[in-house]
Amino acid sequence: MENHLRDQPVTPRTDNEKQALVNRLKRIEGQVRGIQKMVEEDRYCVDILVQISAINAALKKAGFSVAERHTKHCVSHAVKSGEGDAAIEELMDVMKQFSK
Amino acid sequence: MENHLRDQPVTPRTDNEKQALVNRLKRIEGQVRGIQKMVEEDRYCVDILVQISAINAALKKAGFSVAERHTKHCVSHAVKSGEGDAAIEELMDVMKQFSK
Amino acid sequence: MENHLRDQPVTPRTDNEKQALVNRLKRIEGQVRGIQKMVEEDRYCVDILVQISAINAALKKAGFSVAERHTKHCVSHAVKSGEGDAAIEELMDVMKQFSK
Amino acid sequence: MENHLRDQPVTPRTDNEKQALVNRLKRIEGQVRGIQKMVEEDRYCVDILVQISAINAALKKAGFSVAERHTKHCVSHAVKSGEGDAAIEELMDVMKQFSK
Repeated sequence: MENHLRDQPVTPRTDNEKQALVNRLKRIEGQVRGIQKMVEEDRYCVDILVQISAINAALKKAGFSVAERHTKHCVSHAVKSGEGDAAIEELMDVMKQFSK
Repeated sequence: MENHLRDQPVTPRTDNEKQALVNRLKRIEGQVRGIQKMVEEDRYCVDILVQISAINAALKKAGFSVAERHTKHCVSHAVKSGEGDAAIEELMDVMKQFSK
Repeated sequence: MENHLRDQPVTPRTDNEKQALVNRLKRIEGQVRGIQKMVEEDRYCVDILVQISAINAALKKAGFSVAERHTKHCVSHAVKSGEGDAAIEELMDVMKQFSK
Repeated sequence: MENHLRDQPVTPRTDNEKQALVNRLKRIEGQVRGIQKMVEEDRYCVDILVQISAINAALKKAGFSVAERHTKHCVSHAVKSGEGDAAIEELMDVMKQFSK
């Protein structure tokens, strides 16, 4: 089933959409590097935990924007082709993992 | 209060502990870069979401190991010095953010 | 917008679906009453926390089953009527709250 | 080990503390019953999901208040008796479940 959904013709991300998401991920990558530096400099544990929480929040935000686009494009396409249920179950499964 | 707790003499992380945590964060950094590549290569949204969930789980695990060490050292030290309540409230505040 | 979506003709839950969800919620209600008893009987805090985690997990599971049905019916209906985007944004907003 | 921690002499909850926590749980129980009614009355799925999120948030808040009291009393007591590590590991394990 998954391979099937993966092979659906979907609206590819535009260059602008891609760039926005990559930039967001680059900022998150920078935040992870920032924590490494905090550890090396023996910074206070609670400050490190606050930073880790901030990265988790940023990743969730990025994930929700991917999920929203996926639902508006791939899932909607599947719904219109009469194959919505499989796409929706796949979406819900990944949202369950994601909301842990 | 926080500055006060930050200035408590604590057991600094050993070089081994630091290296283990930095290595864990470097792996997470690599995972974030991996997602950038997936976006650039137009990979399937659900696969990207699975990867983002995996990073969130890895960050939570790293955070819990920081929180456990913090409680065993800084918070326990504060408890023994009769200043446990402030340290425990600070810990709970950061755990609340963290568990979102 | 929300009122609009609320007024869409949707497939109402069958009596069986309703009963299954109500039974699930009744079990959760019983679990919450069980914790009250644990508190009154001075049970160990960690055991109480384990029970609270179990209820949270049961509520999330119930919520995901509601969300899946909502997406398969209301959201899919909106997609087919060319009004998918508003329904999907509403779904994502509630999933964000839900995944906290 | 757990049985051991469970048998530590701890400060029992005062009647006031117990009553406050039981009242909080009674409100949560009422919210769960409210959702059953919403299901029976065919209310809009998204409204049901918003209510489920609200209960999850209320349960997390109650759980954190239990965890804070537990840390200030049982865990602190264990720390002062030189048995802090086992109590802290037990606390972290339940916080992990709880933060899912």
